[in-house]
Amino acid sequence: MIRFDSDYMAGAHPEVLDALVRTNLELTAGYGNDPYTIKAKELIRKATGCSDAEVMFLVGGTQTNATAIDGLLARHEGVLAAESGHIAVHESGAIEASGHKVLTLPHYEGKVKAEDVEHFIAEFYADETYQHMVAPGMLYISQPTEYGTIYSLEELTKLNEVCRNREIPLYIDGARLGYALGSNDADFTLQDVARLADVFYIGGTKMGTLFGEALVVTNRKLLKNLFPLVKQHGALLAKGRLLGLQFGAMFHDGLYERLGRHATTLAIRLREIFRSSGYEIVIESPTNQQFVRLPNAVIDKLRESASFDYWGPRGKEQSIVRFVTSWATHEEDINELERLVKEL
Amino acid sequence: MIRFDSDYMAGAHPEVLDALVRTNLELTAGYGNDPYTIKAKELIRKATGCSDAEVMFLVGGTQTNATAIDGLLARHEGVLAAESGHIAVHESGAIEASGHKVLTLPHYEGKVKAEDVEHFIAEFYADETYQHMVAPGMLYISQPTEYGTIYSLEELTKLNEVCRNREIPLYIDGARLGYALGSNDADFTLQDVARLADVFYIGGTKMGTLFGEALVVTNRKLLKNLFPLVKQHGALLAKGRLLGLQFGAMFHDGLYERLGRHATTLAIRLREIFRSSGYEIVIESPTNQQFVRLPNAVIDKLRESASFDYWGPRGKEQSIVRFVTSWATHEEDINELERLVKEL
Amino acid sequence: MIRFDSDYMAGAHPEVLDALVRTNLELTAGYGNDPYTIKAKELIRKATGCSDAEVMFLVGGTQTNATAIDGLLARHEGVLAAESGHIAVHESGAIEASGHKVLTLPHYEGKVKAEDVEHFIAEFYADETYQHMVAPGMLYISQPTEYGTIYSLEELTKLNEVCRNREIPLYIDGARLGYALGSNDADFTLQDVARLADVFYIGGTKMGTLFGEALVVTNRKLLKNLFPLVKQHGALLAKGRLLGLQFGAMFHDGLYERLGRHATTLAIRLREIFRSSGYEIVIESPTNQQFVRLPNAVIDKLRESASFDYWGPRGKEQSIVRFVTSWATHEEDINELERLVKEL
Amino acid sequence: MIRFDSDYMAGAHPEVLDALVRTNLELTAGYGNDPYTIKAKELIRKATGCSDAEVMFLVGGTQTNATAIDGLLARHEGVLAAESGHIAVHESGAIEASGHKVLTLPHYEGKVKAEDVEHFIAEFYADETYQHMVAPGMLYISQPTEYGTIYSLEELTKLNEVCRNREIPLYIDGARLGYALGSNDADFTLQDVARLADVFYIGGTKMGTLFGEALVVTNRKLLKNLFPLVKQHGALLAKGRLLGLQFGAMFHDGLYERLGRHATTLAIRLREIFRSSGYEIVIESPTNQQFVRLPNAVIDKLRESASFDYWGPRGKEQSIVRFVTSWATHEEDINELERLVKEL
Repeated sequence: MIRFDSDYMAGAHPEVLDALVRTNLELTAGYGNDPYTIKAKELIRKATGCSDAEVMFLVGGTQTNATAIDGLLARHEGVLAAESGHIAVHESGAIEASGHKVLTLPHYEGKVKAEDVEHFIAEFYADETYQHMVAPGMLYISQPTEYGTIYSLEELTKLNEVCRNREIPLYIDGARLGYALGSNDADFTLQDVARLADVFYIGGTKMGTLFGEALVVTNRKLLKNLFPLVKQHGALLAKGRLLGLQFGAMFHDGLYERLGRHATTLAIRLREIFRSSGYEIVIESPTNQQFVRLPNAVIDKLRESASFDYWGPRGKEQSIVRFVTSWATHEEDINELERLVKEL
Repeated sequence: MIRFDSDYMAGAHPEVLDALVRTNLELTAGYGNDPYTIKAKELIRKATGCSDAEVMFLVGGTQTNATAIDGLLARHEGVLAAESGHIAVHESGAIEASGHKVLTLPHYEGKVKAEDVEHFIAEFYADETYQHMVAPGMLYISQPTEYGTIYSLEELTKLNEVCRNREIPLYIDGARLGYALGSNDADFTLQDVARLADVFYIGGTKMGTLFGEALVVTNRKLLKNLFPLVKQHGALLAKGRLLGLQFGAMFHDGLYERLGRHATTLAIRLREIFRSSGYEIVIESPTNQQFVRLPNAVIDKLRESASFDYWGPRGKEQSIVRFVTSWATHEEDINELERLVKEL
Repeated sequence: MIRFDSDYMAGAHPEVLDALVRTNLELTAGYGNDPYTIKAKELIRKATGCSDAEVMFLVGGTQTNATAIDGLLARHEGVLAAESGHIAVHESGAIEASGHKVLTLPHYEGKVKAEDVEHFIAEFYADETYQHMVAPGMLYISQPTEYGTIYSLEELTKLNEVCRNREIPLYIDGARLGYALGSNDADFTLQDVARLADVFYIGGTKMGTLFGEALVVTNRKLLKNLFPLVKQHGALLAKGRLLGLQFGAMFHDGLYERLGRHATTLAIRLREIFRSSGYEIVIESPTNQQFVRLPNAVIDKLRESASFDYWGPRGKEQSIVRFVTSWATHEEDINELERLVKEL
Repeated sequence: MIRFDSDYMAGAHPEVLDALVRTNLELTAGYGNDPYTIKAKELIRKATGCSDAEVMFLVGGTQTNATAIDGLLARHEGVLAAESGHIAVHESGAIEASGHKVLTLPHYEGKVKAEDVEHFIAEFYADETYQHMVAPGMLYISQPTEYGTIYSLEELTKLNEVCRNREIPLYIDGARLGYALGSNDADFTLQDVARLADVFYIGGTKMGTLFGEALVVTNRKLLKNLFPLVKQHGALLAKGRLLGLQFGAMFHDGLYERLGRHATTLAIRLREIFRSSGYEIVIESPTNQQFVRLPNAVIDKLRESASFDYWGPRGKEQSIVRFVTSWATHEEDINELERLVKEL
């Protein structure tokens, strides 16, 4: 069985795991006050080109989003996000649980447009009753999006501009950031992301660590007292070094970017296998998630040898399915999938 | 200047005010433990035909909605509402502030359809990732809606059925309930509302009291410990008798219904004045709010002698405006408006 | 029956009520955007000597505390308060419901000491694990306290100093502020309170209005966006002018201070009646609440003709009871009580 | 340097780590829907003797407490806990952040007494104003406590009885449960804990896993919808199998209990080393945390070769320090400490 269900099906990349194994019986201080964590923060500051950024390691994506957003917003503010955004849909109300509304924007294959952000804010303040409504206090985007699409450098720059003009922070959910950076279509670097976002996170869980996300605060005056906030959100790992060690390995010798490139390269091959066999590619995703419309009979046949998820409900005759590659996908898996598709 | 801005521009109906004045220097127990409150609860139980309903008086609508919804939902649940619903738009995030997401449904002139509710819930549980999403835990509707429209008895019955089938409570925001009951188009009674809703409130603020809303819990097992919940939400009035006295007056001798009828009768006259002068009635509202599209020049002219609000942003040439009547509107105000419109 | 249960048993002072009656059928804008509210704010700015203070009228004390504290604290912070403080005991967890811990200090007849505040903060930051604990983000005191005692000018000045040194706001709950100002023992003025507090409120409910509290923000940079915050907390009154009218009457011609003086003068007479009859005065309260230890038989006898509450549980032979006077207490009530006590 | 700072300084016990390494490149479903997690739950059901308990794995202790308590309480309720309890002190307000007050009880070396619980609840409901106060909705205890002490079977039974009588759940924080079970003084078993608690958790982080806590709900009707609640609290691990694998190893062949015994045995030796050298043992802890009063000069000398923390502030001449052993402490570490102490 070859598996394309998600990008969190394997453990850790061997180099990451090795960092844990190698140091396993060492005794160090907890909560991130250990040399491995300090070192990893330094590596991330260097890789992002932000020598004075605050870096904080958390365990998972939902808690990272909830903590950062809670810290960035005033009590009367909400967070702007695509209606397809992870925080709007798939976090069981974690944002609302800390008291904030998610203000949704239309999405275009998962992306929001700077003009829609500007329009929302302009309309908001033009409304005479705006003081009775939830004020847009920040913008959340994901890069790549939940649809696998990526914002171009120009799009990011425009979003940065509207946020700067409107004086709201730009926050980027980078759960799969490495897969965006590893895409052939990417015309931006990690430094660009760090420069254009006020706060963002570099995802580990889906990129080769066992778990862990690196929250990077480049605009430090916007998000203070991160430590107690992280603790309050239940997001502080006692054995903090486990996060430092893993991110240390990821940012050693370019591993993070290599893994991203690996997965997206295989994803593009996968996409073209389906396209060349005449199936409809539903979204032109340049990253590790691919969306294909297949006849239900084809799905049922393929599922005998490969695993992957529906994207939305099963249709009457055809359905959209999602194939996800990751750092752990092998070239052989793609070869095998190609064989299966050709045989259909 | 004749005024149609809103239905909370005057103080209280004279009979309501008189109840306060008459008893002003009496000394009674606080927090609703006084005979006037007990009496008013009894009157409401009688008027609603629910002899064992719990009745609780709160000060305002937003806090009534926030308190009731908070009490009805489990922590992981959200509240279904029209995207135009008051809780979704105009309560500054009060629902989210107590931790719950507002799950929005399409609206049809402010109303939701039973089939959309059913569809939302069916889709929700059909989604394999539903445990990562906010579960629909109750349905909120307003009667009349923010667009002045009303649900028919058949529509209410269908909403009740879908809620019963799906085992979620039906909550009705009755901020302007009297204006619905007073409408010529109303084919339902207060008893019907009480029978079909699990919890609802009878608005006072917009109906002739200085302030105050009567929360009625007909399905008592769904909403317990109301007293401390109300206190926690800062919604408990120290001099609780002020609420009891006002609702006592409102439910004495049919005053509540009379005031509703009065305002809607004038509103229909107002609507027909505009229609007969050739202006577009944007929404066929049978209650005390009327929505008319007028040329901006007409608006500017009318505003010299009458006050009313824009409904949405001012257009380039034409705009939609809202006229609101209330228990405090006089027949002369409408006559005067007629004169103004004819003169245009 | 003469009644000393609480200071919120009557309606409004006749001059206050008259302001409502006189204007009852006027039509004005909602939510405090009316001339009466604007005027009342001006009167309060003048009375407090803070010409640029922000003044906001809310309905009740619990919601005023919850709203102000929520606005003043960062997410990771809690509020310091006497363990006997209203927010710590009698608000059904309203502070916690908006996410903040009440950090309790020892109390001395309801008061906190500046040195205890300093000590708490010093110990907090001396603790190596302080980042895992809730940071003291502001100080809450009540003037007078729940025990009827008052802080002297020197004590207030010291509390102000420790707060200034530690850079946390000082917030004063003035639910009964007028009874403190009206006390013979008061060596401070309303202007002193306004100068020494960053934010405080002037209580109306217990002082002669039907309801309403005037929140005064003298240090405006600490508490912004008050309007949506108040709305979010369900504390915004639709017919806002009712608050403006009442506070306008209270701050017209010194009514507020006169009522305070009236009640405390009667309270001191009441206290001395008991003392001169040989009963123990439990707390030397200089304001409108008096605490006396009485044999249970005396309590039972008195209760045949007078109403008052236990302060804590009924003891085996003796119990502490509380007598409360207010603006609505008559001299005759005290005379009658004297007669009853003498007869015992 | 021998280290006794805490019990979360090392990585994972080799058998636990091996389970992760061995399976690292396997691909499994996320969020706990994998065979390893299912297996581990079964092992825990067996070990606790609760064949129908719900078992849920979370990442850390604070989030486990916050999630369970949030799920167990109604909105108007708070949680009873020792004033020294972890949730009352060291969780940065995580309980309050989800809206609930921690109601503190006096502690006796970290333990609460059943009679104090009963007394609190009795007093609460005897207070006429109880509806204005936060109702005690559950009892939280930690076993062992933050002072290393343990509740005896009799004490647990009494706490269970008072909770049953008062109809509130008993929740046990078992962050270090294995060290209690491994104590010579323990007269209870894991099955007893499971039988007497309604909900409890078996800590992994401090007991030999990299991270992870096993929440066990024996009284399932009290805590439903755990999955979305865990997700909402940001406590759901994407690669859920990491938790299943680790707990699978811990509950294989008695490893969990062996590790507990190992650490407490060494802790008792450590305690007796100090006692026999004439130092004061501050708390008679039978588990892995030991508290000794030492002259500051001794502390400074020892700290040249051993690490350990102050327990509270450093005194003028003497201070209390805490020594913590764990599954990772070696007998040689204790021998070395003995040598150091003898040499003093």
